[in-house]
Amino acid sequence: MLVKEIKELRSLIKSWKREGLSVGFVPTMGALHKGHESLIKKAVLENDKVVVSVFVNPTQFGPNEDYDSYPRDINKDLALCLNAGAALVFNPEPSEMYFDNKATTVSVSSLTSVLCGAKRPGHFDGVCLVVSKLLNIVTPDKAYFGEKDAQQVAVLKRMVRDLNIDVEIVACSIIREEDGLAKSSRNTYLSKDERQAALILSKSLERAKDSLKNGERNATKLKEVIKAELSKEPLAKIDYVEIVDSDSLENVETIEKNVLIPIAVYIGKTRLIDNFTFKIYTY
Amino acid sequence: MLVKEIKELRSLIKSWKREGLSVGFVPTMGALHKGHESLIKKAVLENDKVVVSVFVNPTQFGPNEDYDSYPRDINKDLALCLNAGAALVFNPEPSEMYFDNKATTVSVSSLTSVLCGAKRPGHFDGVCLVVSKLLNIVTPDKAYFGEKDAQQVAVLKRMVRDLNIDVEIVACSIIREEDGLAKSSRNTYLSKDERQAALILSKSLERAKDSLKNGERNATKLKEVIKAELSKEPLAKIDYVEIVDSDSLENVETIEKNVLIPIAVYIGKTRLIDNFTFKIYTY
Repeated sequence: MLVKEIKELRSLIKSWKREGLSVGFVPTMGALHKGHESLIKKAVLENDKVVVSVFVNPTQFGPNEDYDSYPRDINKDLALCLNAGAALVFNPEPSEMYFDNKATTVSVSSLTSVLCGAKRPGHFDGVCLVVSKLLNIVTPDKAYFGEKDAQQVAVLKRMVRDLNIDVEIVACSIIREEDGLAKSSRNTYLSKDERQAALILSKSLERAKDSLKNGERNATKLKEVIKAELSKEPLAKIDYVEIVDSDSLENVETIEKNVLIPIAVYIGKTRLIDNFTFKIYTY
Repeated sequence: MLVKEIKELRSLIKSWKREGLSVGFVPTMGALHKGHESLIKKAVLENDKVVVSVFVNPTQFGPNEDYDSYPRDINKDLALCLNAGAALVFNPEPSEMYFDNKATTVSVSSLTSVLCGAKRPGHFDGVCLVVSKLLNIVTPDKAYFGEKDAQQVAVLKRMVRDLNIDVEIVACSIIREEDGLAKSSRNTYLSKDERQAALILSKSLERAKDSLKNGERNATKLKEVIKAELSKEPLAKIDYVEIVDSDSLENVETIEKNVLIPIAVYIGKTRLIDNFTFKIYTY
């Protein structure tokens, strides 16, 4: 079922809640792939009703970013959601979500000034605003996010905690193509050569895992391993390679507890991200 | 019933909601007076269950403001709430409400850069943060605020709209002492002489109402009328006298639609506020 208006969505969800049904929520920007599908399927397993939003949120794109060209295919998205077991797809117009004279911002400091936040000013304010709104509209018991956007997960967990939003944020593993490339709606931007070149992201992270297995705990040296691998690919241009505390996202020098190792790399004009979390003694 | 923990409060409210009961909410900083009592009584009339919070919120006080000396009397407050028909009083410790590493801010721009917001930097960010949190904890159908804090009402209405918080903000008339002084927890700071001098606030607004009745529509002239009256009182020091659009809080030069006329005046060291809204053809 496709719903475009907040009022109708609220009314349906309230009727479910009156019946005592639990609600899972998967917020997306559409252009759904197997990664999103895995979130929806997990939500379907864990909740009575699942809502998927497919809203390309203008406030999280910078002025020179790809808002206009971001892939959109609502019919394909709707079919994927319903096949995966979602009860409802919410696809609002921007004018349904934002007033012309909107004045309210939601910001998470410190966590958003690093990594993608440093490279995409305002991006996480846009994410926090739209997710706040969607959580207030859908009032889910659980909300599902992919770990590919690891910083987003850390920021939203902090926001939900700080604002006492009554929802459990569920972080789900990265889904990859068979050759290792992390699934992303932006992969559709890649030419054939770039698609091949993009494998360097996951390969470089594998090199870091090898070093960690061999006992390397110095963050600078591990970052050098990743950068050396990335530099082998002529089409790749490093945006950042970092090693940070997985909760605070603060830089780490020696790896003594759980760390997030996120990278952002341009392949041609397309900016791709990937990461893994190294848990001390398990990975 | 007095509740100090968020978890217990949520659990009680969820049990009410399962029974289909409506919930009204009156957020206060305690030191309750007849003004608060009128909010609670209105809430009791309009809802099945009423929650009152009495939390002196540190984040809305500036570094040189009266957080430490703000009046607190939980036993008196509890008795007033229960006598007025409230089901539950929420009185959390600051550590229950705020984490040491809190990182999230909620801001309403433009509306908060004027009037009290201009004089009390950060005040409305503190208000928006705590009210966001309390609304997420209590999840009321309606929340009640006094019109004495007119800017607060305008800011919170905008925040609730912009963030799609599913609550109705109910603004309630100012309650006054018999001699006209607007009820305020800070009135307890006044010495006997200052208490008498404080009457100049409501008197000066009465002068403006007289001028409006006589047809005056020039905002500058009306402000002069108020200032002239205030200047008659030697213990009074004007903080601001403004005439603004009652939704946008933008300055108005000629009164052609509904305006808010708010004033802030120091009586000795105590800062008091008062206001009225002039509705075209009715007041």
